[in-house]
Amino acid sequence: MTPTGEPQSSRREFIRLAGAGAIALPLASLAGCAHLGAAADPLPSWNDTGAKKSIVAFVQRTTTAGSPDFVPVPERIAVFDNDGTLWAEQPMYFQGFFVLDRVKALAPQHPQWKTKEPFASLLKGDMKGVAAAGEKGAVELLAATHTGMTTEEFTRTVSDWIATARHPGTGKLYTEMVYQPMLELLAYLRANGFKTFIVSGGGIDFMRPWTERVYGIPPEQVVGSSVKTRFEMRGNTPVLVKLPEIDLNDDKEGKPIGIHSRIGRRPIAAFGNSDGDLAMLQWTAAGAGPHFCLYVHHTDAQREWAYDRASHIGRLDKGLDEAKARGWTVVSMRDDWKTIFAH
Amino acid sequence: MTPTGEPQSSRREFIRLAGAGAIALPLASLAGCAHLGAAADPLPSWNDTGAKKSIVAFVQRTTTAGSPDFVPVPERIAVFDNDGTLWAEQPMYFQGFFVLDRVKALAPQHPQWKTKEPFASLLKGDMKGVAAAGEKGAVELLAATHTGMTTEEFTRTVSDWIATARHPGTGKLYTEMVYQPMLELLAYLRANGFKTFIVSGGGIDFMRPWTERVYGIPPEQVVGSSVKTRFEMRGNTPVLVKLPEIDLNDDKEGKPIGIHSRIGRRPIAAFGNSDGDLAMLQWTAAGAGPHFCLYVHHTDAQREWAYDRASHIGRLDKGLDEAKARGWTVVSMRDDWKTIFAH
Repeated sequence: MTPTGEPQSSRREFIRLAGAGAIALPLASLAGCAHLGAAADPLPSWNDTGAKKSIVAFVQRTTTAGSPDFVPVPERIAVFDNDGTLWAEQPMYFQGFFVLDRVKALAPQHPQWKTKEPFASLLKGDMKGVAAAGEKGAVELLAATHTGMTTEEFTRTVSDWIATARHPGTGKLYTEMVYQPMLELLAYLRANGFKTFIVSGGGIDFMRPWTERVYGIPPEQVVGSSVKTRFEMRGNTPVLVKLPEIDLNDDKEGKPIGIHSRIGRRPIAAFGNSDGDLAMLQWTAAGAGPHFCLYVHHTDAQREWAYDRASHIGRLDKGLDEAKARGWTVVSMRDDWKTIFAH
Repeated sequence: MTPTGEPQSSRREFIRLAGAGAIALPLASLAGCAHLGAAADPLPSWNDTGAKKSIVAFVQRTTTAGSPDFVPVPERIAVFDNDGTLWAEQPMYFQGFFVLDRVKALAPQHPQWKTKEPFASLLKGDMKGVAAAGEKGAVELLAATHTGMTTEEFTRTVSDWIATARHPGTGKLYTEMVYQPMLELLAYLRANGFKTFIVSGGGIDFMRPWTERVYGIPPEQVVGSSVKTRFEMRGNTPVLVKLPEIDLNDDKEGKPIGIHSRIGRRPIAAFGNSDGDLAMLQWTAAGAGPHFCLYVHHTDAQREWAYDRASHIGRLDKGLDEAKARGWTVVSMRDDWKTIFAH
C-alpha cells in the first residue's frame, strides 16, 4: 500500500478529470433491473460467457457427490484479493485516501508537519511532493496514521471513516465501489460450501471493521498486511498498541506465506487482479486436487478503469502471461460483467 | 515449548515411575459407561457441580433470544489453550517428545550430533544434560527438528508421528490423552453457535495436522507459535520452507496478540490451565459484553497429574489468585470431571 500511487497527476487533477466525465458513472442501477426475472441464476451480473461458465463448471465438479473431482466441504477454501478484485483501486488504493484524510485530521496535533516532508506536501495537496519522498515517505505516513494507538482506537477511526468518506472521482462511499459480480460470486461459493477468505496486501486492521457487513467475510477470515502489537495493562485494562514494525507484508510471495500462517491449508480457488496475486494463484494451482484460478482484468474504461501491464497500481503483466499459458480464467470486466459496482 | 521441561528427572526415571503405578491408568472406559442413559445432557462427563452449572448458565444467557446478555452468533468466539487444557502436558509438553523422537530419527544424517550438545546428551537419554544446555540448547533442538524442511514435509512428519507415537507413561497415543469433558464442552459450544479456536503456545504446524480429526477444530481456527517461512519455486513447484526465526510466540502476552492478529475479534469465552493463559483470559474478560473465563486445575494425582503453583510445566499461580479474585470458574479435575481421558 502506498499513498503515492498516482505520481503523474495530483489528486486535484484527478478530481477535475473525474468531474469532466472521464470516469463514467457505473451503470449498476440500470443493469440490475434487466435481470429481475433470472432468480434461479446465482450470478445474474455475469454475462453468459466463458468466464462464468468456467466458474459454474468448477463449482459443479467439486461439489457433486460422486464426481471424480469432488472436494469435501472443509477443504473448499477460496481466497480473494481485495484491492482491484473485490473493490476498485484507482486512482490509488483506497487505504491511501484514508492516509490522506488521517494526516489532515491529525495535523493540528502535529504543528511540525507543516515543514516536515512528506507531511508538508500532503497538507498542501502536492501529491508530486509526496511521491518525491519515495518509500521512506510512505512508511512515515503509514506509521503516523496506523501506529501508536490501541487496536480498538484504530478500529473506531476506520469505522467512522469508511461510513462517511467518499471517493473523489465517483462521489460514492468506498464500500459502494465493490463489484456486484464478485459479491454474487462470494455468495455462490458460500452457498456451495466454500469458506471465503480475503488475502490482501491491504492492512488487516483497515479491512476487518467492514468486511463482514460488505462482503459477508468475518474478521477471522481476513488475511492482510499487519504491524506488530504490544500488550499493555492500562490500569486494569489490557490493550494492544499498534507498533511501527511490519508483522506480515501480505503481498506477492507474502500471500502464500500469509495463507499458510493464517489459514493453514491450501486453497482450491484463488481470485486476484494483479502480479501481486500471482504467487497466491501459483500456490493454489500447485495443490494436489482440483483447483481454480481467476484474474479480474480491468478492461472497462467506460464503467470503471482500464489498466494492466503498464499500471503502477494493480499491474497485471506476468500474471496475464501466466494465466494464458496455464489456462486460468481471465475475466474481462467490459465483456464478462453486466454490472460493475454494487451501488 | 521446551523439551527440557523435566529437569528434575530423566525421561527414563519418569517411565520407571509410571510403570510402577505412580501414574494411574485413566478410568475413561469405565466412567464412560455409567452415563449412557443421559443422552439429553450435553456434558455427561461433568459432575453436576458449580463448574458445569456456570458453563451451562453462560451458554444459556448468551444464546437465548431476548436475554439481556444475548450475543449474536458471529461474535460467539471461544478460545482454548491446548497443552493442559485440551490434552495432557506431563511430564513434558507432548511436542517435546516429538523433538526427542525426531532427533533420534535424524541422528544418522547428522553424525556430528554424537559429540555436539545438547544432541549428544539427548541421544544418550541424559535429560539432565539436555536441560543443562538451557534455552539455547532448546532452541537448537527446535531448529534442528522444526525448520529447514518444507511445510508439506513437516506436516507429513507430524502426521506420521502422531498416528503412532505413544506416551511413555500411559502407553496411549497422544491423541488419546485428550480430555473427554473438554471434547464435550467444545461440541456443546459449537452446537450453540460458538466458533471454537485453539490459541496455544505449542507449534501451529505441529497441531494443525490433527486438530480437526481430534477436536473438530479446523486448521484455520488454530493459532499457535510459529516460525517464519520463505516462498521458493523449486522448478515449477512453489514451496514454503520453514526458517529458524520466530514469527509468533503465542504464549502469555503473545496470546492476545495472536488472537488480535489471527482472529481479529475479542473472544467472549476463554479456557486455559496455566499462567501462560492469564493474558488471554484477561483480554477476554476486558470485553464490553458478557464473557466467561475458565481455568482447568490439575488436581487429580490418581487419574491424571496434580500440579499448580510450583510446577515448571503448566504453572498455575498468579492465574489461580486472579481467578479467585474475579470469580472465574476453576475446574477441579478430581471433583468436577467424571472422566478424564477420551480413550
